[in-house]
Amino acid sequence: MRRFKAIMMAAACCAMAGSASAASPSAEVRTWRQAHEREILADFSKLLAMPNVATNLPDVERNAAYISGLLETRGFKTRLLRASPGTPPSVFAELRTPGAKRTVVFYAHYDGQPVAQKGWLNPPFQPTLRTAPPEDKEVTVPAQGPINPDWRIYARSAGDDKAPIQAMISALDALKARGIKPSVNIKLLYEGEEEQGSPNFGRIIAQNLELVRGDLLIFGDGPMHQSGKQLISGGNRGIAGFTAMVYGPNKPLHDGHYGSWVPSPSVMIADLVMSLRTEDGRILIPGIADEVTPATAADKAGLAAMPPVEEDLKKALGLGRTIGPKRLADGYLSPTLNVRAIHAGDDGPNAANAIATEASASFDFRLAPGQTPARIRKVTEAYLTSKGWFIVRDTPDAATRLAHPKIVRLAWDEGSSIATKTPLETPAAQAVAKSIGRTVGYDVIQLPIVGGSSGFAEIVNQLKAPMVTVSIANYDDNQHARNENLRIGNLWDGIEVYAGLVADLDW
Amino acid sequence: MRRFKAIMMAAACCAMAGSASAASPSAEVRTWRQAHEREILADFSKLLAMPNVATNLPDVERNAAYISGLLETRGFKTRLLRASPGTPPSVFAELRTPGAKRTVVFYAHYDGQPVAQKGWLNPPFQPTLRTAPPEDKEVTVPAQGPINPDWRIYARSAGDDKAPIQAMISALDALKARGIKPSVNIKLLYEGEEEQGSPNFGRIIAQNLELVRGDLLIFGDGPMHQSGKQLISGGNRGIAGFTAMVYGPNKPLHDGHYGSWVPSPSVMIADLVMSLRTEDGRILIPGIADEVTPATAADKAGLAAMPPVEEDLKKALGLGRTIGPKRLADGYLSPTLNVRAIHAGDDGPNAANAIATEASASFDFRLAPGQTPARIRKVTEAYLTSKGWFIVRDTPDAATRLAHPKIVRLAWDEGSSIATKTPLETPAAQAVAKSIGRTVGYDVIQLPIVGGSSGFAEIVNQLKAPMVTVSIANYDDNQHARNENLRIGNLWDGIEVYAGLVADLDW
Repeated sequence: MRRFKAIMMAAACCAMAGSASAASPSAEVRTWRQAHEREILADFSKLLAMPNVATNLPDVERNAAYISGLLETRGFKTRLLRASPGTPPSVFAELRTPGAKRTVVFYAHYDGQPVAQKGWLNPPFQPTLRTAPPEDKEVTVPAQGPINPDWRIYARSAGDDKAPIQAMISALDALKARGIKPSVNIKLLYEGEEEQGSPNFGRIIAQNLELVRGDLLIFGDGPMHQSGKQLISGGNRGIAGFTAMVYGPNKPLHDGHYGSWVPSPSVMIADLVMSLRTEDGRILIPGIADEVTPATAADKAGLAAMPPVEEDLKKALGLGRTIGPKRLADGYLSPTLNVRAIHAGDDGPNAANAIATEASASFDFRLAPGQTPARIRKVTEAYLTSKGWFIVRDTPDAATRLAHPKIVRLAWDEGSSIATKTPLETPAAQAVAKSIGRTVGYDVIQLPIVGGSSGFAEIVNQLKAPMVTVSIANYDDNQHARNENLRIGNLWDGIEVYAGLVADLDW
Repeated sequence: MRRFKAIMMAAACCAMAGSASAASPSAEVRTWRQAHEREILADFSKLLAMPNVATNLPDVERNAAYISGLLETRGFKTRLLRASPGTPPSVFAELRTPGAKRTVVFYAHYDGQPVAQKGWLNPPFQPTLRTAPPEDKEVTVPAQGPINPDWRIYARSAGDDKAPIQAMISALDALKARGIKPSVNIKLLYEGEEEQGSPNFGRIIAQNLELVRGDLLIFGDGPMHQSGKQLISGGNRGIAGFTAMVYGPNKPLHDGHYGSWVPSPSVMIADLVMSLRTEDGRILIPGIADEVTPATAADKAGLAAMPPVEEDLKKALGLGRTIGPKRLADGYLSPTLNVRAIHAGDDGPNAANAIATEASASFDFRLAPGQTPARIRKVTEAYLTSKGWFIVRDTPDAATRLAHPKIVRLAWDEGSSIATKTPLETPAAQAVAKSIGRTVGYDVIQLPIVGGSSGFAEIVNQLKAPMVTVSIANYDDNQHARNENLRIGNLWDGIEVYAGLVADLDW
């Protein structure tokens, strides 16, 4: 009886919460997945077949309702959160785990990029199974036996970002079928407007702070590392873009008659560009890096431990050299100044030999942790002023033109953002690294932050929770482009990763 | 009898050739013109009403036949000169003057620029009389009294270049009516393809060298000086253009992830531009000016005597500063490097944050007297090579990309030319200056060469004759653009200038 009671108590204990020291559920989940590949793929196709460009509100509502239904079937309480009527909702879903001490919020987005590109092999909302590139041959699911994991499903959002949604749902199904309970309380936050720049997401969070709060936010978006190894990152850089327009004569002039005497906007814009950064990437603006939070020892260790991809990447990209840091990711904790475009002169038939009236260039700063768009604007404008530029916000009138030797019209982009950085040595982040490490059987790459930007910093700050990025889509998923696809094996692996994050995560 | 004989001999002398010391025929020509303004304008309108874009061969033939007819009526022997069948002819016409020791060849062209521009006030081949700009009101010729000389006739080629053709014809009519004989043998050479770049004119000259030869070539094209004063010039600069394309990664890359590590074509092209010339116009290529013929004392005197237009021009062009020499024309005896266009990056919707795969810029050198396109090509390419550029002529293949850190594809334009310069102190040029000076009653401006280019150097070299440019069209004639026009007063003045060049020219 006493033994029976002990067993019962052990069973009760484990029935209440999956223990953090339990073995990784991977093997169990894999067994289940292997027996259900066709159903999983059919469910995923059904999800992908729903058009999901956020500018189409009826489509978005259909996705949100459908996903809510899927989650309710699995025991979630769901709500649709809108910043205001007529804007795409975020799907919020909660599944409490009795006895669990931590609450983990999983983010993904169910909307997708526009689909106007030419060259899709199949219509973007007609999910199609194909062999691996470059063959891309259409195939059908075999009646039995494993589906070739190198095959891919081609549809918009197959990678970005419905893959983590399907992975979570299938992970929960697998765990339930195998009798494994989650180790955390689960909150799901699936946004409907990410590809539009998340214009309302900050307000959704602000209006629902208590509801969506948790101890850890797992940001489920983005493709995996080039090496194919699992990677977590602690955030991303910020962004501050601007355009500059410079002015020459007030009408186009024959450059034979005037070229030696009239300032040339083409040369002025090239000069402005080269005054801001060197060809090998050094930003020349004094004070530009004043606010940057220095890299920590853990940052440096994480970067040093990254697998070397540079040689292969150089060859794949056809580069005779690289600039800046020897290792690609080493630049992510510093600011970068990119020159997106330069346009000077005109290709029109009678314009060839003309001194143009103006020229322009478009730039983006990528902000390192600690930097603010406001200070970047300030030091950049102070520097240009020190170089003799008179800064205007509108087209200069005649009096202004005559009064200043060098005029530049500066316009800073609306959508700027700061960097987000959760130190990966924090217990929550390390718990994620270890969970995934147990799932995949090797130490995951720990990238302090990714090089790209996102509007999430302000949102994450509201939640006051550490945020870790986890990715499952294959590196070459063609996100944002034509022929977006998810490698089947990546879905299988993603199910195991999410199962581990739900049932084998504790700190 | 002896006195009668002296008078008869004097009369015979003057009947054979207009004496170089005779008074300018201006007053006589003006008297005649004042009595014939309506007829002259009607004749000019008839000439302008004939469409004359050189790509339309029937139109061109019509112009050539018509102009030949007009000249034959005035006693010229005419011939149509073609480089080969099916190409636009030059009209050649000769009128010998018994006893004249000099032969003067007058050049103009009867073809015009294309007329596809939007915004013509009247159809380009429907010559219309209007009041002066900005009013531009349509008016009709009054039944009697002088026609307002500030009115303008609006039509394609009114300024460029049928004005000198009408001026010559009316000058000859005036001289004949007033009993004044030419002082020179007259050859007229009216080209039919100048606006197409004179592709066949060199061959026409080569094939008819003895026929077209003379002691002086008067190049009748171009607008008058900004000051409104008469100007002669001894030639023009040459031209050598090229485009440069630089290469980055072999596919567009996300500039957040890659911007600190991958060379940016936008920055590379700006860097290339600034390595070639400074913002204030200095060319940085070693040896670029090695071949330049230094300015002569006469050149400097001519430049120094030019009326100062710079302050007014600065204001009119809306410039807060100028670059290079203080005086506009002082730059014409040196080379200039113009940057016609820079194109880097793409304005497409998903391209904003991409590192582009390539970027390009388009340049033109204006050549000073003595310089050759071949040497300019050589020193420019040697300099770029010294700056680490690997020069290619085609898109680089994968192996080339990997083997070189900086690759530039250089393509030199086909239509290059050298400068032409007749020293204005030569007797023929001084005779032209003095003739026009007597016509207008002041010392004409003597500009060593104009800043623009023309393919005429090779042609002029074949003729081995001094060439002087004389212009009669108003400065703001909108040549090459919509609403080309000739100010009526400029036609009246032009008739007097041409009458002087025909009847009051000797050396």
